[in-house]
Amino acid sequence: MTLQKLFGIELPIIQAPMAGAQGSALAIAVSHAGGLGSLPCAMLTPEALHAELVTIRAQTNKPFNVNFFCHTPPQPDAAREAVWRAALAPHFREFGIDPATIPAGPGRAPFSEVAADILEEFKPPVVSFHFGLPSAALLARVKRWGAKVMSSATTVDEARWLEAHGADAVIAQGLEAGGHRGIFLSEDLTTQVGTMALLPQIVRAVSVPVIAAGGIADAQGVAAAMALGASGVQLGTSYLLCPESTTSAVHRAALQSPAARHTALTNLFTGRPARGIVNRVMREVGPISAVAPAFPLATTAITALRAKAETHGSGDFSPLWAGQNVTGCRAIPAAELTRQLAAGL
Amino acid sequence: MTLQKLFGIELPIIQAPMAGAQGSALAIAVSHAGGLGSLPCAMLTPEALHAELVTIRAQTNKPFNVNFFCHTPPQPDAAREAVWRAALAPHFREFGIDPATIPAGPGRAPFSEVAADILEEFKPPVVSFHFGLPSAALLARVKRWGAKVMSSATTVDEARWLEAHGADAVIAQGLEAGGHRGIFLSEDLTTQVGTMALLPQIVRAVSVPVIAAGGIADAQGVAAAMALGASGVQLGTSYLLCPESTTSAVHRAALQSPAARHTALTNLFTGRPARGIVNRVMREVGPISAVAPAFPLATTAITALRAKAETHGSGDFSPLWAGQNVTGCRAIPAAELTRQLAAGL
Repeated sequence: MTLQKLFGIELPIIQAPMAGAQGSALAIAVSHAGGLGSLPCAMLTPEALHAELVTIRAQTNKPFNVNFFCHTPPQPDAAREAVWRAALAPHFREFGIDPATIPAGPGRAPFSEVAADILEEFKPPVVSFHFGLPSAALLARVKRWGAKVMSSATTVDEARWLEAHGADAVIAQGLEAGGHRGIFLSEDLTTQVGTMALLPQIVRAVSVPVIAAGGIADAQGVAAAMALGASGVQLGTSYLLCPESTTSAVHRAALQSPAARHTALTNLFTGRPARGIVNRVMREVGPISAVAPAFPLATTAITALRAKAETHGSGDFSPLWAGQNVTGCRAIPAAELTRQLAAGL
Repeated sequence: MTLQKLFGIELPIIQAPMAGAQGSALAIAVSHAGGLGSLPCAMLTPEALHAELVTIRAQTNKPFNVNFFCHTPPQPDAAREAVWRAALAPHFREFGIDPATIPAGPGRAPFSEVAADILEEFKPPVVSFHFGLPSAALLARVKRWGAKVMSSATTVDEARWLEAHGADAVIAQGLEAGGHRGIFLSEDLTTQVGTMALLPQIVRAVSVPVIAAGGIADAQGVAAAMALGASGVQLGTSYLLCPESTTSAVHRAALQSPAARHTALTNLFTGRPARGIVNRVMREVGPISAVAPAFPLATTAITALRAKAETHGSGDFSPLWAGQNVTGCRAIPAAELTRQLAAGL
């Protein structure tokens, strides 16, 4: 089945959910243009989630996607947190921050019954997950209202797992992709594969439609992904400069600077590896820290530094999520970008 | 200009030079089929190089490529070598090897006047380099007999550098590629980019033809690379099982096993990062060692272990070079494989 038919969309272009850089406005614009807009829900309170869904339903009757993380929240570990804060101590001193006074950082709650209760009222036609899938019971709830389910695979094994556990489509998330790696069956980053190699292997391994993600930035990239057997593509980075995105000023500036050509996987900002533009804290601490607390607990300490730095217009401590190809980033309306991406189809 | 015209070939398919896994036979077969066969010369003595060139010229009048490394040989560092051998000590004990008696490993000499002297007699129409380019004087010698020159870029900066320094074509070596990374302007592996992201950015950055490498394994992959603006493709891994290759028995077995799905960059075998199938020594030492001697000096210590293990049919200490997509590996004649790769063009 084509992705268009599966999701009820006109163009096989999915706007990747980007928590912290967009809300309903971007999703609505992309869905209106015939693609599949996505609402990132991992950092929304129940009230905010409800409000965003009200907005989407009020402004479009096109299909849209809501995206959730489905990690197992870790137990806070005071000893590890102390080691982590010690590693950041020079930076706390520089900004005059007392680490003892840092409030908890923004939470990232996994998909839950509470979220499902809210969704049920709106019956979003597509629900996507990152870091695997939720429990069988929760997944069944989502499917009961007719939602199609997709999730990211970073390896062939993960793609097979997702299909076996009920995903209606699989996103082949190549190593080029910005933001959090969806990796969930391993913690070994050497298992991560570039799109050119990952996509055709996943297409061969599963029978559900496969969506390509990672490194795609224009209509040529879309055509290349389709040549490799993709049923559609998911792009995030290219949408970050659109006026409908809520990308921060420091993030927008970084994306338009030469620095954007150098990204790396880093766990400093949340505790899980995610791809962002290399900035000062990634250089000074190293992009991957063995002592960063488990996802999402690492967020707390660094958010204090980020907030201070951003008040001075600096992105030195900010997660500047971006994929390895920022050449598609343009400050044009998301609908126009969506149509341009699909121009060769 | 098309790559076919630049190199005088019929099909824009380049067989990647693979030192240790092939000689003239594979190059001849691919060139005969209309692609560009490559002879890896980095590990050949002057006598062996001469003999291989005699063989090629005797068996084909089609264009072919000779490939050289162009690193700066390091000064041996006894202290570092001692630390490295200490790290491998448990393995030496296991195999009953006295580290004091290990002979020097296979050398990898950079391109030189001696090599140019030998080449000049045969005037190979294409000369490719890895790790940058040789000196301006040596490059001029090669160009004087009409050879076209290409080299690998692993970043946009390297592609621009190669064009500025006289490369007639640039190989965009995506992170998926097997064997040695061509990286030469940096030692930071976070600069390395997947093919889907790297290729279109290099196509945009230079005006010479760009050859895609990394993760391509079949006609669909070739089509995808062409959609991204490549003028041709270079594949190595897919040729490793061809009867004309000299791929070792343990290497062939590994390529056909499920283990081949997990590769990693490792510097254990030579001192420079190269992609190979994860095996025991990579797991036990870690794929990247901070104490491995500089390229190519790391080769010596591990070659002793490799030799012992291989006599027992084990590839636990062998460099099992492979890219991230081994699905194209088939034990069919190289000419047939070449034609199949070009089938969609």
